Amino acid sequence: MAEPTGSKSVPVLKDLTIDNITENVVRINSQCSDPRLRYIMERLVSHLHDFARETRLSFDEWMAGIQFLTQVGQICTDVRQEFILLSDIVGLSLLVDSIDHPKPSHSTEGTVLGPFHTHDAPADENGFSISADPNGEPLLVLCTVKSTSGEPVEGVKIDIWETDSHGKYDVQYDDRGSKADGRAVIHSDKVGVFWFHAIVPVPYPIPHDGPVGKLLAKLGRHCWRPSHMHFMFEKEGFDHLVTALYIRGSDYETSDAVFGVKDSLIVGLDTVTPEQAKQYNVKEGTKLLAYDFVLVTDKETKQLRHEEAAKAMKSLGREEGMTIINGVPVPDVD
Amino acid sequence: MAEPTGSKSVPVLKDLTIDNITENVVRINSQCSDPRLRYIMERLVSHLHDFARETRLSFDEWMAGIQFLTQVGQICTDVRQEFILLSDIVGLSLLVDSIDHPKPSHSTEGTVLGPFHTHDAPADENGFSISADPNGEPLLVLCTVKSTSGEPVEGVKIDIWETDSHGKYDVQYDDRGSKADGRAVIHSDKVGVFWFHAIVPVPYPIPHDGPVGKLLAKLGRHCWRPSHMHFMFEKEGFDHLVTALYIRGSDYETSDAVFGVKDSLIVGLDTVTPEQAKQYNVKEGTKLLAYDFVLVTDKETKQLRHEEAAKAMKSLGREEGMTIINGVPVPDVD
Repeated sequence: MAEPTGSKSVPVLKDLTIDNITENVVRINSQCSDPRLRYIMERLVSHLHDFARETRLSFDEWMAGIQFLTQVGQICTDVRQEFILLSDIVGLSLLVDSIDHPKPSHSTEGTVLGPFHTHDAPADENGFSISADPNGEPLLVLCTVKSTSGEPVEGVKIDIWETDSHGKYDVQYDDRGSKADGRAVIHSDKVGVFWFHAIVPVPYPIPHDGPVGKLLAKLGRHCWRPSHMHFMFEKEGFDHLVTALYIRGSDYETSDAVFGVKDSLIVGLDTVTPEQAKQYNVKEGTKLLAYDFVLVTDKETKQLRHEEAAKAMKSLGREEGMTIINGVPVPDVD
Repeated sequence: MAEPTGSKSVPVLKDLTIDNITENVVRINSQCSDPRLRYIMERLVSHLHDFARETRLSFDEWMAGIQFLTQVGQICTDVRQEFILLSDIVGLSLLVDSIDHPKPSHSTEGTVLGPFHTHDAPADENGFSISADPNGEPLLVLCTVKSTSGEPVEGVKIDIWETDSHGKYDVQYDDRGSKADGRAVIHSDKVGVFWFHAIVPVPYPIPHDGPVGKLLAKLGRHCWRPSHMHFMFEKEGFDHLVTALYIRGSDYETSDAVFGVKDSLIVGLDTVTPEQAKQYNVKEGTKLLAYDFVLVTDKETKQLRHEEAAKAMKSLGREEGMTIINGVPVPDVD
């Protein structure tokens, strides 16, 4: 069946059946010079084919899938990423974040990035007001960033984004232009503190006027996310942290359409003390969101990632012939 | 962990991890009122998540995948279907055709549809010339259509399409407009015969200026298909047959980029006899492609499809709780 081509044996593809196609596609793809891509394609093709075999996927269903994916691609724009939304509502985004950013206990957990982060948020000082929405309920956000050993971390770049009081991100308005709202980039100070003015987050539906919204409806699922605020932390030497804080008691707290909620990220809102009102220049009675974030070092993350990848290869029975490189399994070159 | 909602138990989604996310996404999707879609989503989510866990998919790799799928969607037009092309080059199209159209022995095998079938081919009589390309090598195509019991089948609608002598389909030219070329729809006559004038097929590359072409290059694979002509057969009472004939000895015969070649569909070209030249109004020495197609009845196909679906459920250990309906497994409603 095989004919030699250089050092590799390439199969003769002339009689592919339900039962032999997978091994043959995998063998053809094994000509790939990038061993990591080769492994990714091997697992992808195996699972895709098993999916078709196990469901006995019909031509009409396959065609419906082709059309669905085409619609998902075609609705994407610079400010709308429907494939990320699709990944979110099938739990893939949460899974990938959990794999790529393993957390030791007592550190802040990560969650889904979502499709609404932008790179044009204004960089500003502590005390900045991130929302220009006059209808939002004022909120003081008062946080610290520490390492797992409890030391304050200075100079962390923190990206924050939230919706307006209507549950919409700035990029969801046609007339947004280049004027960001509901966003900021702030840095933690010498004692690891960062704080800013915002509005109390509200629940919102993920964009549901496209193919992903239609799929959710077909699945009998709602398209809502509970009230939350996004945070992203970057500082050299620390693992990139994408997370969010969820407001305790929000609608949809237990049924987030994108599977982002974690108990450790749910926070009850307080009210500022008279001293805080004075210190942070807010009215008495203003709502307060306070949280202490704990960042993990790159070194800790790499170690954990390596251990968990090794564990996964073991349970897959593929310890042999694979080496964990930068935390991911890569087949050894023959 | 679960709270009752109507008759269903919906999980509380607040602490999803690498290990528990799959069952929770499957349970949320089980609210779907269409049991077939529920099963498809169950298998899809399970395989997608296993893929991520087994590869330890990184955020950057996930993002590369998101961007790749977006590009695939965005290059699609009315006359270019890059997702079908993607399905073709990973062997999914061939697999789905094999599952959906099982063939008893001695019937004509099916193969990939490809992305170039259109619905505007001219309907014409036997003897029609399907190609206007003056540079193509003339070819007489002389075929019969029979049932598995050997009876000629009259009045079968046969869609035929091939490239021009440059290896391009009409729809790949910007100025094609509504004028189809290299295509025809012909019907078999009283004795099951259909024949037409065409040109000798040539190998051609699948469209490789888009994301699928780039993927093939990364995988170290070529993008060529061996010389072939497409055929599609429709007649009430018979299973829809999508197939192609491959010219024996063509370049890429054993390494078709889309896995479409089957031994039973490879045909050597003959030369017309002097009698045939006269009868079919071609020059002496003209090349001849002759083939006897055998169609399967709907009834035979349904029976086979049912048997193979039942076998697949058995080997998956899921005979219980599933019923085979119209040849596909559907979970029983609780």
